[in-house]
Amino acid sequence: MRILILGGDGYLGWPTAMSLAAKGHDVCAVDNYLRREMALETNSEALIPSPNLDDRAGIFEAVTGKKIRVVIGDCADYTLMSRVFGEFKPNAVIHYAEQPSAPYSMMGFTEARKTLNNNLNATFNVIWAVMKFAPDCHIIKLGTMGEYGTPNIDIEEGWIEIERNGRSDKFLYPRQAGSLYHTTKVLDTDLLWFYVRTHGVRVTDLMQGPVYGLSTPQADMDERLLPNFHYDDIFGTVVNRFLTQAVAGVPLTVYGKGGQTRGYLNLNDTLQCVELAMTNPAQAGQLRILNQFTELFSVNEIAGRVKAVGDRMGLNVRIESIQNPRKEKEEHYYNAKHSGLLELGLKPNYMTDDVVAGMLERIIKYRGMIDTKKIMPRVRWS
Amino acid sequence: MRILILGGDGYLGWPTAMSLAAKGHDVCAVDNYLRREMALETNSEALIPSPNLDDRAGIFEAVTGKKIRVVIGDCADYTLMSRVFGEFKPNAVIHYAEQPSAPYSMMGFTEARKTLNNNLNATFNVIWAVMKFAPDCHIIKLGTMGEYGTPNIDIEEGWIEIERNGRSDKFLYPRQAGSLYHTTKVLDTDLLWFYVRTHGVRVTDLMQGPVYGLSTPQADMDERLLPNFHYDDIFGTVVNRFLTQAVAGVPLTVYGKGGQTRGYLNLNDTLQCVELAMTNPAQAGQLRILNQFTELFSVNEIAGRVKAVGDRMGLNVRIESIQNPRKEKEEHYYNAKHSGLLELGLKPNYMTDDVVAGMLERIIKYRGMIDTKKIMPRVRWS
Repeated sequence: MRILILGGDGYLGWPTAMSLAAKGHDVCAVDNYLRREMALETNSEALIPSPNLDDRAGIFEAVTGKKIRVVIGDCADYTLMSRVFGEFKPNAVIHYAEQPSAPYSMMGFTEARKTLNNNLNATFNVIWAVMKFAPDCHIIKLGTMGEYGTPNIDIEEGWIEIERNGRSDKFLYPRQAGSLYHTTKVLDTDLLWFYVRTHGVRVTDLMQGPVYGLSTPQADMDERLLPNFHYDDIFGTVVNRFLTQAVAGVPLTVYGKGGQTRGYLNLNDTLQCVELAMTNPAQAGQLRILNQFTELFSVNEIAGRVKAVGDRMGLNVRIESIQNPRKEKEEHYYNAKHSGLLELGLKPNYMTDDVVAGMLERIIKYRGMIDTKKIMPRVRWS
Repeated sequence: MRILILGGDGYLGWPTAMSLAAKGHDVCAVDNYLRREMALETNSEALIPSPNLDDRAGIFEAVTGKKIRVVIGDCADYTLMSRVFGEFKPNAVIHYAEQPSAPYSMMGFTEARKTLNNNLNATFNVIWAVMKFAPDCHIIKLGTMGEYGTPNIDIEEGWIEIERNGRSDKFLYPRQAGSLYHTTKVLDTDLLWFYVRTHGVRVTDLMQGPVYGLSTPQADMDERLLPNFHYDDIFGTVVNRFLTQAVAGVPLTVYGKGGQTRGYLNLNDTLQCVELAMTNPAQAGQLRILNQFTELFSVNEIAGRVKAVGDRMGLNVRIESIQNPRKEKEEHYYNAKHSGLLELGLKPNYMTDDVVAGMLERIIKYRGMIDTKKIMPRVRWS
């Protein structure tokens, strides 16, 4: 298959590109290094410096003999997207090309506006480029579980049937997200659903939980192929941040009461999920929504696990509650369905003690490169 | 009060500016003539040419002695919005500054993208300009009943309580709109709701139905003060189009089966509703949603009314069903609540035979200026 990966330099985009190229697909990765630039701007660089995307593709080819095409350019630029879709004619496009940080989107006007315009225009361009140049192409869009927020009722898998006075109808499950970044994903879903209904586009919208992990089978072949690993407050997700704090010997910083519960998944499961979506495509005129996570944890549970494993490894891990920089419920009901991907064949890699230990060991190798100034929250929600 | 009206040159913006200035408010109207430009581009000019906004304000002052401040500029430009909010420090902002045509938004990529970016960025800028320069300012945003689409259950007033397995929560009523234009209003609502929740902005989001009418008490003082009246397929709403077709002696063009049912209101009731929202502001941190219409009609009912009144006036009105250029249900359940504005004191001007006759008489005065080439649908949904 011809697979276009937008945001192909990212934490998920790059391992996805390698994984699918390794399986023999014709992969083209597009990126404009937006995340690298934002990380530089905000002093939030990844733990291990990565070669640029052209170089990564070169290293990957040297190691595996498999090519990954690279296009450096902006997915919010329709001229570029037209050219890429017109020339490559993908069978599937995996759309990761979004400003991915909630704290970044809450810094101020400029960052908020960049998040809104980048994310919406990238999605809009994908839809139109598909309609014009590759009408049968399956759009696989990375959304987020954060679109749903933390409602007091069960979270369904994308849709909800509502009954009222003896009548009923099916709707998108109501969404209310906790940051502007997450809200742009809500807008993306609205936009995709509109063009699915009116123009018969085929879309899988993956509501993904926070991802953790440092490597994948392809990255394990050469250290220079590792995905960019962020442990900072802006681009780092909570598991990756806690792991790094444990290694650095600073307290794991729980925001507020720590009862915040979310669905998490291993980086290797992201690769599985995206591939399962791709090999089992949505129908024309279908918006298929899948909740993409494998386990529910509260922040306190994650901190407890990292501490337990870290302590056994002699890290002497401390946990500290700090003032929550976000506006969010710190204790709440959370029960989210996630059967769709399991039915497609997902075999979860759960967060066992061995998995936690493996991640800690890997970070220990780079202990000297951790900058603890990058960990404490620098962005407040209001 | 100091009232900022964004889109102050529009069909609703200009009469609102006059109405509030006539009552002694300090009114500032901002517009960049986007709708005039789009009407010119698409050969869809209004029935009666209007003086520009500066001239209209001058005429209004000559007639009434009341000033309306005018700023010509783009609400999607944050530099302009910062200046206007910083200098004028409004108590309320009435936000009409959106590309308002569903067919225009469905013409192609360029028009769709212009609609998305203009509408979203204008709303985003309003939110940020309020937060930075006038934090207590009440945002009155014109949404549309079209945000809800045509669900098979009753349409509530903005919000819905959902019960599941013994638990319940309140959500934005699920929205699924019938055009990209209407979808941008869904995105606006999502965006407003986010900043209301996290930053305590105060917002009234008016879900307005299609508006009909040619004049208002202020416009009646001088013909040059009339709002721009569109009867074309792109900017004209269905009632105004049917009235014009009746006068022009061409058939009233019902799209498809004509069972499409919506909530309608008189232009004078828009003025009342917006003023009622303004004098009874939302609280800080409240997104108040009001369904703004007075009567439900199907397209066939409207055609029947115009024909009945027109025939009595000797117009010999014909009705013709044509292929529906839109993708929409032509027969459907529709029951929408709308008690909020009545509770605030709205006194509806219903679409009586006298009202229809009055509108027909006024159009008859301009009969020679009707261009029937502008009426038939030129934009198809797919």
